[in-house]
Amino acid sequence: MKEQDPSPMASVGPFNDDDGLPGEREQRHVHKVGVPPRQNLFQEFSATVKETFFHDAPLRHFKDQSHSRKLLLGVEAVFPIVQWGRSYNLSKFKGDVIAGFTIASLCIPQDIGYAKLANLPPQYGLYSSFVPPIIYAFMGSSRDIAIGPVAVVSLLLGTLLQNEIDPTQNPADYLRLAFTATFFAGITQVTLGFFRLGFLIDFLSHAAIVGFMGGAAITIALQQLKGFLGIKDFTKKSDIISVMRSVFSSAPHSWNGPTILIGASFLCFLLVAKYIGKKNRKLFWIPAIAPLLSVVLSTFLVYITHADKKGVQIVNHIQKGINPLSLNDIFFSGENVLKGFRVGVVAGLIALTEAIAIGRTFAGMKDYQIDGNKEMVALGTMNVVGSMTSCYVATGSFSRTAVNYMAGCHTAVSNLVMSFVVFLTLEFITPLFKYTPNAILAAIIISAVINLIDYEAAILIWKTDKFDFVACIGAFFGVIFSSVEIGLLVAVSISFAKILLQVTRPRTAILGNVPRTTVYRNILQYPEATQVPGVLIIRVDSAIYFSNSNYIKERILRWLTDEDEKSNATYSQGIQFLIVEMSPVTDIDTSGIHALEELHRSLQKREVQLVLANPGPVVIDKLHASGFANVIGEDKIFLTVADAVTSCSPKRVEEA
Amino acid sequence: MKEQDPSPMASVGPFNDDDGLPGEREQRHVHKVGVPPRQNLFQEFSATVKETFFHDAPLRHFKDQSHSRKLLLGVEAVFPIVQWGRSYNLSKFKGDVIAGFTIASLCIPQDIGYAKLANLPPQYGLYSSFVPPIIYAFMGSSRDIAIGPVAVVSLLLGTLLQNEIDPTQNPADYLRLAFTATFFAGITQVTLGFFRLGFLIDFLSHAAIVGFMGGAAITIALQQLKGFLGIKDFTKKSDIISVMRSVFSSAPHSWNGPTILIGASFLCFLLVAKYIGKKNRKLFWIPAIAPLLSVVLSTFLVYITHADKKGVQIVNHIQKGINPLSLNDIFFSGENVLKGFRVGVVAGLIALTEAIAIGRTFAGMKDYQIDGNKEMVALGTMNVVGSMTSCYVATGSFSRTAVNYMAGCHTAVSNLVMSFVVFLTLEFITPLFKYTPNAILAAIIISAVINLIDYEAAILIWKTDKFDFVACIGAFFGVIFSSVEIGLLVAVSISFAKILLQVTRPRTAILGNVPRTTVYRNILQYPEATQVPGVLIIRVDSAIYFSNSNYIKERILRWLTDEDEKSNATYSQGIQFLIVEMSPVTDIDTSGIHALEELHRSLQKREVQLVLANPGPVVIDKLHASGFANVIGEDKIFLTVADAVTSCSPKRVEEA
Repeated sequence: MKEQDPSPMASVGPFNDDDGLPGEREQRHVHKVGVPPRQNLFQEFSATVKETFFHDAPLRHFKDQSHSRKLLLGVEAVFPIVQWGRSYNLSKFKGDVIAGFTIASLCIPQDIGYAKLANLPPQYGLYSSFVPPIIYAFMGSSRDIAIGPVAVVSLLLGTLLQNEIDPTQNPADYLRLAFTATFFAGITQVTLGFFRLGFLIDFLSHAAIVGFMGGAAITIALQQLKGFLGIKDFTKKSDIISVMRSVFSSAPHSWNGPTILIGASFLCFLLVAKYIGKKNRKLFWIPAIAPLLSVVLSTFLVYITHADKKGVQIVNHIQKGINPLSLNDIFFSGENVLKGFRVGVVAGLIALTEAIAIGRTFAGMKDYQIDGNKEMVALGTMNVVGSMTSCYVATGSFSRTAVNYMAGCHTAVSNLVMSFVVFLTLEFITPLFKYTPNAILAAIIISAVINLIDYEAAILIWKTDKFDFVACIGAFFGVIFSSVEIGLLVAVSISFAKILLQVTRPRTAILGNVPRTTVYRNILQYPEATQVPGVLIIRVDSAIYFSNSNYIKERILRWLTDEDEKSNATYSQGIQFLIVEMSPVTDIDTSGIHALEELHRSLQKREVQLVLANPGPVVIDKLHASGFANVIGEDKIFLTVADAVTSCSPKRVEEA
Repeated sequence: MKEQDPSPMASVGPFNDDDGLPGEREQRHVHKVGVPPRQNLFQEFSATVKETFFHDAPLRHFKDQSHSRKLLLGVEAVFPIVQWGRSYNLSKFKGDVIAGFTIASLCIPQDIGYAKLANLPPQYGLYSSFVPPIIYAFMGSSRDIAIGPVAVVSLLLGTLLQNEIDPTQNPADYLRLAFTATFFAGITQVTLGFFRLGFLIDFLSHAAIVGFMGGAAITIALQQLKGFLGIKDFTKKSDIISVMRSVFSSAPHSWNGPTILIGASFLCFLLVAKYIGKKNRKLFWIPAIAPLLSVVLSTFLVYITHADKKGVQIVNHIQKGINPLSLNDIFFSGENVLKGFRVGVVAGLIALTEAIAIGRTFAGMKDYQIDGNKEMVALGTMNVVGSMTSCYVATGSFSRTAVNYMAGCHTAVSNLVMSFVVFLTLEFITPLFKYTPNAILAAIIISAVINLIDYEAAILIWKTDKFDFVACIGAFFGVIFSSVEIGLLVAVSISFAKILLQVTRPRTAILGNVPRTTVYRNILQYPEATQVPGVLIIRVDSAIYFSNSNYIKERILRWLTDEDEKSNATYSQGIQFLIVEMSPVTDIDTSGIHALEELHRSLQKREVQLVLANPGPVVIDKLHASGFANVIGEDKIFLTVADAVTSCSPKRVEEA
């Protein structure tokens, strides 16, 4: 049943299409299709498991090592700091300190603002920039990522949590639910990483993320209009219609003049600083310290002018002191556990997606590798510990990571430095924020999220792949016009629909002979390709699995019916041979074999001969194992389409 | 950016691998890679929608028709009986009557038994063989299918429903829930068919169904041991351990002698009749009437010998009269609606899978086409109407359809005849079943479900595709050792895992040059193929989408690292060129382009040149549109691997 011919000429296998040169037909050596050696079940299974879960060979360097070394390597795997900590030196420390201070100055005002997005008191933002980065520095693999609360996850958390518990009416339970969600977010992340299921987050396509982030950014910016304009009554909903209605129905008379002045002027300042940083990369530190500078200046201004008496809303109070323990605040029983679980899983997955994308991008830029699954374990642990120390979901922030990178960070010690600065802030500096106007925080957030609107990427997506663009736009409009959850749902659904489409509706094409060659090409792509009378050649562009086998069979039969009609009209004879060109068919399963058998039977009834051309190694193997090769006759399986056509209608080919 | 060269020689496109003949190298004409004309978004979108939902062109014959004709065609589409009814004649009627009586004799005892499987009083089985076949005859497209309750769906319904409501303690509500589930099963089926989502049931792979059916058959057979041995206390659970425990703990002393005698002897009779029918296909009617004969004989026997006084359990009472209306019995509000909905969706989908498989098989044998989606609408309507007339989920039965086919049915009128016989039974004959022993029904069911254990198919699956076999065995053991729902869950999960695997972990292969040719083959399949020093050729065997782009990039980089080590060890030089052979890459999206860009950047850092060979039409289009073709340089994209290798290292090729 299985042939294996060692001679190279005769065992020239599949993927061997025609030569493209004319005048070669007479001495055509019809090569036998080679069949590869059979792997036993265990080999095949372990190869598949290895490729699926361990494709990056994470245990590669464990080979051939002594036991104590393996133990050390194991500790290093969980705590990479043990490895890079040993080669740490003063110059690296210098770079990390500068970078750490720079991102700290950026993160402090952002944290206070982001906590508001999550409907939490401002100190929780600072807490989440204190503990999580420390955990990450010990366990994480990225050298550049800057850890802390981020805009989109804060918004997501705020929106999802307030659907469950009202933060104004029941702030204590709301806080507890936030910790519960953070806990489950961390558990989700650790589980995915530990079971090496990290590839699951690849299922959110890049295009959908671009749209989702852009929509989230606009939503966040719109919500800042509350603080920016000094409006007191503002909608809780996040969609653009509700927000616009809130803004304009409160009408200009309830907009607070001084607030708008402060907000607008500092927003201009921040945007100009950003522009300068973009134009001249050496001046990256300008947009980095601009937020803190604005906070200091505006606080001073408000204090001097007593603007808070004139209606400018201020932060007023940030709890002093570092993170209290919150282990007892997490819901471990009751109905809130499920609520927290649901919110936590979603927030955890989005946080993962951001952090992994950031980690990969910067690792690519500095050309080192990070193990995605190991990163997930680190991020998850960070959030689990954070949930027990009054933090909410923290992840990598793209803007802060970019600043970290450009400020010259070398290792995750920059995160430790930033954490230390936040610690100092919490212990000593928080009272100074008393007079900080909300408007400045709103301006800082608006200038921060503008980065997330990546219209250049959207244009590129439009040019490259229209389906991806639909995913992008769908997610974008879903977030803007409905809510963050709906936008996310749209993004995931469109991503899945694309996979479904790929899997259930593969392409098929009719091939014709390009004149004066023995090459067969898609007649739609090459209008000059002519079909051979009485012969229909169809190429199937995918593996034939249960998910598409029935479709492929019905599609081929439909091609046959249509072409038969045309052939009868043109040549007064029908199709007598159906050649299935199988080079793109990388695999076939039992449903696929089934479909081929049914196709063969249908064709026999119509007196059409089924011929197979160019089956790959895996396919030829299964055709033999299932006995189908005997059913159709082994003389009906050819190496190339040209060979198949020659055998079908030798007379006709000579005439051509 | 886009070239389109009309001259055939120069526009020879992709899929043009080498010629396989040596000595051809000098005058190699390097063909330009042809780029197909761009489709606008609307054309692409409507083509995709058409292919996804209307691939069998159901409205094809509506073209170019007058309005009144279109109306008639529309009516015929919904009620196919209008079409085939017109060509009905006496000979067809003769065939249908014979077939109808034959399947009626088979279905009556089965119906009484299957209703028991669903924990319903026996008349409900007969009701479900009365109304649903009538509806189907008007709306269905299959000429051979026999409609009625079937073993697996009855078991499934019984198991799922008794998880929600106890049939012994609350029979009234249980009955109402059964009708509710049937209603929602029908709604599910109609919805799938109407929105042409029928391809979703293809997601349950053939192998998984074989395992599931086999396991369900054994479960059903085991449950019949209760009636067969005359045991009074029997477990409600369906897994094999609980059943065996029930059987043996009740110990032989509570097994009823006369019951076992009756059951065993008639079971032997049925199995012998089956064997005779298999050996000689002309005697198919013997196993067809054997069940009814057994019922008649055994009832007579029990009546004569008063065996019911000796502990033989009898049917005792079947409600006389035809189906009462049950519209008011369906739950449309309250918590039972959701329960009914959940059970109904699952039962409806399984029923669909069976009916569509049967319809396709027999349509293939008689070589006519059935529209799967239209069938679903017919089956759904039949169940919706059935739920309002005291029926439970009915579908096509494989054994009865086979009998129908062999008895010479021509159209669905055989179902009408069967329905009429059931009507007569309900009106007049039910009192005669009073003394029918349960043991005989058990024996009939056991002999019926033995067909479902398709071990030959399982062996073929083992030989053909090991992954499919895992799905098969997983479903089988899931049903046997746990429950029907778990088995189903296992079957669906393994099916999805396979699709996931196909989508996220495509194959990649290193290619080498088969000596004395310019052909490049997988070095694992062709050990004689040698790699070109300094050049690494990798073939990617799938479209590059977001679901696998990151994996492909990382896998290629890992191949590079490994091969670089080997190359340094063997030749004291590393890899300088990486050729990606792209002929199996049928499509690429923005994430894929991203991955190529990141790959290019990584390679640039390692001073390796990236070269693409053989990109297909869609891919070449997107490479240009995204600008990647410029990034890599258009002179780095070749038509064949041989061309690419020649350009990489001309000196080396000449030396070889």
